Amino acid sequence: MNNNVNIAIIGLGQVGGYLYKELLKNRLNINLLTGKKINIVAISAKNLKKKRQFKLNKKIFYSNPLKVIKKEKIDILFECIGLADGISKKIVENALRRKIHIITPNKALISKHGDYLSKIAEKNKVNLEFEASVGGGIPILRTIKEGLATNKISKVYGILNGTCNYILSEMEKTKDNFRNVLRKAQKLGYAEPGNPKLDLNGYDAFAKVKILSALAFNKRLSNSVSLMEGIENVEPKDFEIADQLNLRIKLLGITEIINNKLFERVHPCLVKKNTYIGNVNGVMNAVILEGKPVGESVLQGEGAGPEPTSSALMSDLMSILRGNIKYPFGIPTAKRKKIKSYDLNNYENSLYIRFEVKDKQGVLSQITKNLANNKISIQRLIQIPNNKNKTASIVIITHATKQIHSDKCLRLLQKNKNVLKKPVLLRLFK
Amino acid sequence: MNNNVNIAIIGLGQVGGYLYKELLKNRLNINLLTGKKINIVAISAKNLKKKRQFKLNKKIFYSNPLKVIKKEKIDILFECIGLADGISKKIVENALRRKIHIITPNKALISKHGDYLSKIAEKNKVNLEFEASVGGGIPILRTIKEGLATNKISKVYGILNGTCNYILSEMEKTKDNFRNVLRKAQKLGYAEPGNPKLDLNGYDAFAKVKILSALAFNKRLSNSVSLMEGIENVEPKDFEIADQLNLRIKLLGITEIINNKLFERVHPCLVKKNTYIGNVNGVMNAVILEGKPVGESVLQGEGAGPEPTSSALMSDLMSILRGNIKYPFGIPTAKRKKIKSYDLNNYENSLYIRFEVKDKQGVLSQITKNLANNKISIQRLIQIPNNKNKTASIVIITHATKQIHSDKCLRLLQKNKNVLKKPVLLRLFK
Repeated sequence: MNNNVNIAIIGLGQVGGYLYKELLKNRLNINLLTGKKINIVAISAKNLKKKRQFKLNKKIFYSNPLKVIKKEKIDILFECIGLADGISKKIVENALRRKIHIITPNKALISKHGDYLSKIAEKNKVNLEFEASVGGGIPILRTIKEGLATNKISKVYGILNGTCNYILSEMEKTKDNFRNVLRKAQKLGYAEPGNPKLDLNGYDAFAKVKILSALAFNKRLSNSVSLMEGIENVEPKDFEIADQLNLRIKLLGITEIINNKLFERVHPCLVKKNTYIGNVNGVMNAVILEGKPVGESVLQGEGAGPEPTSSALMSDLMSILRGNIKYPFGIPTAKRKKIKSYDLNNYENSLYIRFEVKDKQGVLSQITKNLANNKISIQRLIQIPNNKNKTASIVIITHATKQIHSDKCLRLLQKNKNVLKKPVLLRLFK
Repeated sequence: MNNNVNIAIIGLGQVGGYLYKELLKNRLNINLLTGKKINIVAISAKNLKKKRQFKLNKKIFYSNPLKVIKKEKIDILFECIGLADGISKKIVENALRRKIHIITPNKALISKHGDYLSKIAEKNKVNLEFEASVGGGIPILRTIKEGLATNKISKVYGILNGTCNYILSEMEKTKDNFRNVLRKAQKLGYAEPGNPKLDLNGYDAFAKVKILSALAFNKRLSNSVSLMEGIENVEPKDFEIADQLNLRIKLLGITEIINNKLFERVHPCLVKKNTYIGNVNGVMNAVILEGKPVGESVLQGEGAGPEPTSSALMSDLMSILRGNIKYPFGIPTAKRKKIKSYDLNNYENSLYIRFEVKDKQGVLSQITKNLANNKISIQRLIQIPNNKNKTASIVIITHATKQIHSDKCLRLLQKNKNVLKKPVLLRLFK
């Protein structure tokens, strides 16, 4: 690479805008660390006139990002639009084909098209870097690819979505309901103001899990979702009961190899209060790796927002400027394994199930009978009557239960007219 | 670098021996990840006949390490002897001059001669890598150099010595005394069986602090020690009192920039039980970085032992095999700043001081008068009589107190014939 490096930023929202300012501010520092001079020669966004917290240089502005790579000589392009397909994919694949290095925080794009894009990057001998796509400012991908390179990793798990972790922490602290806490999170900028669904239903965390497994196990990206549950159904009473049991509710993303099969999942978990993961609160992200010979490694940091994201984007930039040409996923895509998926039906775990029922004779026995018929054995039962409207909450903590059995049991019980709504299911973390 | 890479291991103790086995085991994996074939062409230790848990290849054995680099064509040399000077320094400087890459876990050598050795490495365009010197398996140096490269770091602190953290955790848990817990740590292999002094007096942690500051602040290594205190004087009663105050005792290493001056220190701290750092127990290490824009980053992992150390050594190897020729401290040594030291006398902090005194009238007033004379104001006072031998413990928690005042006060009080031994001083972490 030439000593003068031309840079383009595509997308000038929260992340792209912050990055633009950081790049301008850090030019001298980057030169000191790498010997390279960077020049921002093109920026692109939908709307030139949108109100922004910084001054745009109109001379380098493009409303059509595809024109940027046609008209300018670009060495490194930041894709900060964030779509899983569409223009995000188009600009990245076209740029890679023109031997332009790509840096992106776009987990939706990478988790969906990462293998395909990697092949193009490898063929054209340029980098496709996406440190910012997982864990915000935590250099977790670099740590797996480089810091723990020769370790045999068996499991990676953690808190991968700051929005959900904030909402769960806040519901626990304030005893307020999901709706109100979500509104507060939106006000504070911790949740998308428009449609935060992709954070809340586990989709965002799952995209990160897919990227983590691909790196940790040297495998292709998965294209199926085996278990993805969000936090929308958790209610204040679940926090109350968890508290009594000395537990806390966290949305975890987990990937591990069980009997040579891959098991990726995202769901709310009950974790012990005195564990490390039980004490990662608010918008923090944390990732825990289990590997040999390193043992257990923990990385924690601010998971979202333009500041940590920009820190990760800059670290990718530095890596490219230092001339580290690398395979996007650590090894050539052709050598990355395909690992079969673990059969979810066999997944065995202790469960927390809360039923809302009519408070009348025989209901409890209907439930326990159904559980017994489906080979679910009860470890603990808590019944909380609600005298106001003659209903009750029945909470059952089960012994290790196979997914196929709990699925069937809940399907049957949902049809029971004494069960008033879809039972809430949480999994005990082991 | 050629596709066939010749490797030498100097020193076959716990770390060198484990590394030897790991290298043999990982040859295929390394080839997959980097395309290079590694060959161990020389190993060296004092004594060929020493009992080892693995089989030595006698054909490649040297008892004089200097002969290795004279007789063999070596590309990468692992220095695993571990001395601050002597043969460790000699072999490293000679190898670097012969354009041999060096990988070492030797914090004593790097913290003392790192600048000098870096210059030789830079001149000969080879790597001097020392990821394993700080934090065992935690890739903390790589994270500072690469993952957080453009961040402005203001403070780095953490638990840097697994031996001390184990002893402090165990004293708290078992209420046993220092001597007994140390003996147990030695039995379990968590403390050196011979002379564990360099762990216990803070020297080991201080060497790591020096390396961390050099990287975090892009500066030369310090050659002075401003504040280094160990854990040898902490007694069970200190844990009891800490517990009552909802605090825990931890040996922390801290480096920060205060008013453009550098303040490096290692000393026991009282930390709140509900903080992150207060919950890092046993042989675990943890490092916390405060930077902009990334915010607070936490890295935690197993800090000592051949397994995590070997993981870090291997990551250095991978980096070299991938052709990342880098400045040992991230930027050219000539460009690394010199930062003046912060004047310890001005350091202001809340203190915990425990006096062992004769239990007779007037003693308490002698102490409090002395404190007042030295501008030390008391936040809390706890007096615990020991009726058996007519002595008492007086514990004082002070408001923020300047080091110069507490020094003078303790010097005076130590001469007081009613004060029976050197007071124990712990610092409250803020």
